[in-house]
Amino acid sequence: MLINCVAYQNGIKLADIGAEQIPDYLHLPDALVWVALHDASDEEISHFGELFALHPLAVDDARNGHQRPKLEEYGDILFLVMKTLEPDKDNAIHVGEVDLFVGANFVLSIRNRTRKGFQNVRERCEREPHLLSHGSGFVLYALMDTVVDRYLAVIHQLEDELEDIEIRLFSKNSSARRNITDLYALKRKLITVSHVALPLHEATARLYGGRVPRPCHHLNEYFRDVDDHLARIMHTVESQRDMLATAIQVNLAMISLDESNISKKLAAYAALFAIPTMIAGIYGMNFTHMPELNSPLGYPLALLSMLILDILLWRRFRRSGWL
Amino acid sequence: MLINCVAYQNGIKLADIGAEQIPDYLHLPDALVWVALHDASDEEISHFGELFALHPLAVDDARNGHQRPKLEEYGDILFLVMKTLEPDKDNAIHVGEVDLFVGANFVLSIRNRTRKGFQNVRERCEREPHLLSHGSGFVLYALMDTVVDRYLAVIHQLEDELEDIEIRLFSKNSSARRNITDLYALKRKLITVSHVALPLHEATARLYGGRVPRPCHHLNEYFRDVDDHLARIMHTVESQRDMLATAIQVNLAMISLDESNISKKLAAYAALFAIPTMIAGIYGMNFTHMPELNSPLGYPLALLSMLILDILLWRRFRRSGWL
Amino acid sequence: MLINCVAYQNGIKLADIGAEQIPDYLHLPDALVWVALHDASDEEISHFGELFALHPLAVDDARNGHQRPKLEEYGDILFLVMKTLEPDKDNAIHVGEVDLFVGANFVLSIRNRTRKGFQNVRERCEREPHLLSHGSGFVLYALMDTVVDRYLAVIHQLEDELEDIEIRLFSKNSSARRNITDLYALKRKLITVSHVALPLHEATARLYGGRVPRPCHHLNEYFRDVDDHLARIMHTVESQRDMLATAIQVNLAMISLDESNISKKLAAYAALFAIPTMIAGIYGMNFTHMPELNSPLGYPLALLSMLILDILLWRRFRRSGWL
Amino acid sequence: MLINCVAYQNGIKLADIGAEQIPDYLHLPDALVWVALHDASDEEISHFGELFALHPLAVDDARNGHQRPKLEEYGDILFLVMKTLEPDKDNAIHVGEVDLFVGANFVLSIRNRTRKGFQNVRERCEREPHLLSHGSGFVLYALMDTVVDRYLAVIHQLEDELEDIEIRLFSKNSSARRNITDLYALKRKLITVSHVALPLHEATARLYGGRVPRPCHHLNEYFRDVDDHLARIMHTVESQRDMLATAIQVNLAMISLDESNISKKLAAYAALFAIPTMIAGIYGMNFTHMPELNSPLGYPLALLSMLILDILLWRRFRRSGWL
Amino acid sequence: MLINCVAYQNGIKLADIGAEQIPDYLHLPDALVWVALHDASDEEISHFGELFALHPLAVDDARNGHQRPKLEEYGDILFLVMKTLEPDKDNAIHVGEVDLFVGANFVLSIRNRTRKGFQNVRERCEREPHLLSHGSGFVLYALMDTVVDRYLAVIHQLEDELEDIEIRLFSKNSSARRNITDLYALKRKLITVSHVALPLHEATARLYGGRVPRPCHHLNEYFRDVDDHLARIMHTVESQRDMLATAIQVNLAMISLDESNISKKLAAYAALFAIPTMIAGIYGMNFTHMPELNSPLGYPLALLSMLILDILLWRRFRRSGWL
Repeated sequence: MLINCVAYQNGIKLADIGAEQIPDYLHLPDALVWVALHDASDEEISHFGELFALHPLAVDDARNGHQRPKLEEYGDILFLVMKTLEPDKDNAIHVGEVDLFVGANFVLSIRNRTRKGFQNVRERCEREPHLLSHGSGFVLYALMDTVVDRYLAVIHQLEDELEDIEIRLFSKNSSARRNITDLYALKRKLITVSHVALPLHEATARLYGGRVPRPCHHLNEYFRDVDDHLARIMHTVESQRDMLATAIQVNLAMISLDESNISKKLAAYAALFAIPTMIAGIYGMNFTHMPELNSPLGYPLALLSMLILDILLWRRFRRSGWL
Repeated sequence: MLINCVAYQNGIKLADIGAEQIPDYLHLPDALVWVALHDASDEEISHFGELFALHPLAVDDARNGHQRPKLEEYGDILFLVMKTLEPDKDNAIHVGEVDLFVGANFVLSIRNRTRKGFQNVRERCEREPHLLSHGSGFVLYALMDTVVDRYLAVIHQLEDELEDIEIRLFSKNSSARRNITDLYALKRKLITVSHVALPLHEATARLYGGRVPRPCHHLNEYFRDVDDHLARIMHTVESQRDMLATAIQVNLAMISLDESNISKKLAAYAALFAIPTMIAGIYGMNFTHMPELNSPLGYPLALLSMLILDILLWRRFRRSGWL
Repeated sequence: MLINCVAYQNGIKLADIGAEQIPDYLHLPDALVWVALHDASDEEISHFGELFALHPLAVDDARNGHQRPKLEEYGDILFLVMKTLEPDKDNAIHVGEVDLFVGANFVLSIRNRTRKGFQNVRERCEREPHLLSHGSGFVLYALMDTVVDRYLAVIHQLEDELEDIEIRLFSKNSSARRNITDLYALKRKLITVSHVALPLHEATARLYGGRVPRPCHHLNEYFRDVDDHLARIMHTVESQRDMLATAIQVNLAMISLDESNISKKLAAYAALFAIPTMIAGIYGMNFTHMPELNSPLGYPLALLSMLILDILLWRRFRRSGWL
Repeated sequence: MLINCVAYQNGIKLADIGAEQIPDYLHLPDALVWVALHDASDEEISHFGELFALHPLAVDDARNGHQRPKLEEYGDILFLVMKTLEPDKDNAIHVGEVDLFVGANFVLSIRNRTRKGFQNVRERCEREPHLLSHGSGFVLYALMDTVVDRYLAVIHQLEDELEDIEIRLFSKNSSARRNITDLYALKRKLITVSHVALPLHEATARLYGGRVPRPCHHLNEYFRDVDDHLARIMHTVESQRDMLATAIQVNLAMISLDESNISKKLAAYAALFAIPTMIAGIYGMNFTHMPELNSPLGYPLALLSMLILDILLWRRFRRSGWL
Repeated sequence: MLINCVAYQNGIKLADIGAEQIPDYLHLPDALVWVALHDASDEEISHFGELFALHPLAVDDARNGHQRPKLEEYGDILFLVMKTLEPDKDNAIHVGEVDLFVGANFVLSIRNRTRKGFQNVRERCEREPHLLSHGSGFVLYALMDTVVDRYLAVIHQLEDELEDIEIRLFSKNSSARRNITDLYALKRKLITVSHVALPLHEATARLYGGRVPRPCHHLNEYFRDVDDHLARIMHTVESQRDMLATAIQVNLAMISLDESNISKKLAAYAALFAIPTMIAGIYGMNFTHMPELNSPLGYPLALLSMLILDILLWRRFRRSGWL
């Protein structure tokens, strides 16, 4: 589905144009045509592929989707695959995809399965013509910056989740089963983020310093900034994974501790029952000569001794923390 | 066993030829002879080794099989060892081998212990003469692409297996023994895939960018595409291994949790039996002066008190989740 | 909030100047203007950003704060983000931030959320004019050196904490729950330190050897010294993390050992009660022909046998360490 | 002990010569003198050290033995230390050492504490004079190839051991103690292999590609082949270590599972005994008014109820897998 | 404290000289002045710092001590910080420090908190004037070689310790608590060695091959030898850490196994007591119609049945390894 197709010259918007007018505008000096597609059909992709003379392998990748993030140069045309991350209900993460073809005088963006669009990126670019006049490279930067900024929202959600689990981990009444289930789910999500951000991070590093692809010339500082954001994200993900590994061990220790406490309680209560049972057993014996049995105080004293022994024992268990 | 022997010129099939005609066709300008062997005998390998003047060390490797994937240049001839992966029954993986010798004007492919052949690769190449006219390098690409694509089927099978184990892991009635057995088996398979894909990935990186072997010139984009697929596979395998390590810890935690729940139940039921036993013991004592014993209500009251105490206890255990 | 604004020439203080006088002094030969802000407002940052012609992206970063430590060159101007670490109450760590802009003839330092200031750095620099005459690079060094030295205080605090936990870990009466809680908290703090020190370490390596940014020329030995301190800190943090991972395993082993000891005690006491209960049970049977029952020695002998068996058993348990 | 001392010219054996004739033969054009020592005395090593003008540090290393594998160049002379691995009884590994000095026209090999000799290497070389005519480098290759091939036998032994442990691990009647003992022993052996093969692998990489020491010129393909074998060995060792770490965790899980099953059994049997004991206790009470006691059916009904309750309970435990 | 101050020329000792004579000797051609201090005071360090024109940052480091090992070049003067390791009582490790300043014609060595001195190094150097004539670089080598050789003694001590723990780990009567305590202590010591040896290893690599500091010219083989020793030490430490991690897991498994065995014993003995108690309970019931009670054989048969059942059970437990 074609969303937008706009022609710019020196950073200033000329007109919303139809797909058929694109060739005319591409030949203007300092022109930039920015085409945005959404959940594009195979025909649309093939059509624009021919229009902009894109490499068949890249067009194939765009058509098939579900690619890993990557940056490829086909001659002077850059092909960038990014994944979008959006918070979903039930703490899940929704993964979408943005494919970008960036030539000297055009940008073709195709977004699939994303919820939020990039209309605000276009507006921001149009508000700053002096920056947009850098050409297609700046559009590339603006889109990358927006995609990466949205990762941060997901990262913050994951940080909150971990914090939440941590609190439960150390509270006495939490369910170890729920903790371990949540920790495992969090691990999955961290791996998802890492799969999305790490290859993009590697790609970004090739857009500044050293040999830089043509459309990104003179934008070093901007791409370095995106790179820095991605570095921060990767660092956070790494720490989260590290803490999570420790949290899993803590949870195991807590389960063992719980087990240990139950054993203590079991042993203590077993002893509290065993004493009266044993005494009762003794006075249940059928010997003919058991003087205590005939004393009128025998029964109350027997009960009393049971009670006193249990109280003494109970206090001892209490003091040593078994009860 | 010789499967095919075909001569091409500028990407167009000339003829199916016999092994003895090969030298004639090799001398045609822009010719390409593509020979395919299947579970080749030592004699066949030696024969073609002499025919194409292959290096004795490479011929030895082809004869011995069971090599690790590798890419070696012997002068202008490339020697590539790839492993094939095919899903087998009972979730097992079947590992085969493809050895390729790629010279300027010939391709010799030897496949051993594989189930699926590569007839479709040949057909695809013949349908696209403009690509096949790139020469032996394109045949190399087409074969690598097919082998690597088949890895993906295995990867998806492993992903399904892990997902299946995960569901069982967190369900209350699964067998921890079966889970751990399956996790271990999955680990073995991931290592197998990693052994097959990692060295091939390293080899592929030498086929584009930087100094590229002669037959692969002008095919950068194609080999980069194979490389990208392998990168995706390695990433997935890495994540799988990571999740699997966590799953093993989760399983251990689940076993401990289970143990802990049994202890709770054991303790609870022990208490439920201990109370009536203790009371019965007390009234089984043989003291002469035990007023309760002579009361007609003594027996029913004793039974009632046993019952009431057990009900109270049972409800308490119930509430605290021990029962 | 503007704290200081001082002009120097060849390392010698000229005057405390107002913000509006800065442009005059910047044009003096060999002049250096050193401006220090504290919890600066957005307006202040923008103001000085324009005054010193700083890059908008760097000014943005300074305004937003909460950045990861980094070193960026914008033309001849260095932008360094450092984090400060200060011990807080309850063994917590307080994290602040210092942003530095270093040009050929000026230093702009902005510190946010730090407790201790850097007045002593200024005093030290003014006491050593021959060093300060190296210009803005030396001020950069002096500030970095001070920030890094303060990390060491935090490192020592963490070392003390770990030592404290270690002692408790191996003492018989410590609380495993408290140990695991403290180990987890320590892990978090180590990750914090590592997040602060590691990117700064990477940045520092670019300030000596190889291509060095303009303001840092001729100060190789000094920046290498800071780098060396950071290397030491990272080494210590790494070892701490390593020991901590082992300590967590030790704690788990201790919990299991504790559990094991409780089981032994439980088993031993159960046996001590089970013997008299069994004997009593036997003599509580109602057989008419039980000769022992009628003997006047029957009862005392029964009691004695209970006692002797329990004593023997108790000694055996004692010897084997179960009690 | 001197084993062999043979002179070759252009790959063809001239004569078995005495140690005192060596200098004469060294001066022949295209000559190669190959000296083999076995468990050499210090005097022998010193003697040949002087004869071939070897560097004192290398001679020291050869004398002291127990070195780590390494490759060092002293001028035009290569000094290579390799370790040999031979399967020993009781699944142990026997480690020996081979020190090689390789000059332009001589090879001095000293083997210590190895069982198998290298006579077959010499025979193989003499059978292929066209290869031996490459000079001392080819002898170096042939010896390395043989040493590395022998590693493979050890690797296969270790693979068999792991497979054997794996089978036991998942069988119900294996001894967890024996498994853990064997896993630990296997770990030790893997580390031994890794200590022997890894530094040799690093050394081998310096014998082909890039700058190659003089004696190894024109033998690129051969040393790459050795390198490839070592790469395969290292890969296998790595996977073994990885599987072994998982196997240790599996064993721990199995112990916990076993423990858990015992607890279930303990709880089940305790309940089976507790029920009759409780019922018997109730009818052992001494209340005067217990109607059941006087009924002639009382006793058989009591026994029956004990039996029926136990059968019901037994079946329930059976169904839930506790028994 | 000044220990020695000796002047050499071309490797031959000229005289023991006083500190005040040093400047005279420094100007002799091919002279070398070697000054050794022990636990030097700040004044001494400052004095020699001025005498040899050392860089203030290096002098500061020497004064403060407790540095991490490092190698720094200040112009033509090398500054090397090494740590010494000496076995201490109770298996502890004593850590000392040696700081070396090496100029073209002088060596200043400062050792702090070390027990053994380096008098033997001086003697060895004086015995080999042809080597000492290489100048200050050779003294540097001789001191490094000695320090590193002493590490080996510590390494061997740690290897013995681990072996000792391993034996205990797998013996049935060892204390798991002592094992874990010793494993933790060993881990600490390995980290200490690694902290001492690793940075020195990095430093040594800069003393041969590539660009080498002036005083170390023509001594490549010697420094490579030190480097090789350090590589061996690092390898051993790495393996020890690896084995230790496994040993900790083994210990945990052993604790679990022990626990499991106790549970089995507990269950078995509980059953052995439960049977007679249950039978006794049954015959302790007060039913009027219990024919067995009146039989004269009732009592002995009851006792016999208890005995027989327990013997049968005992044998069964015995066979299944529970007892």
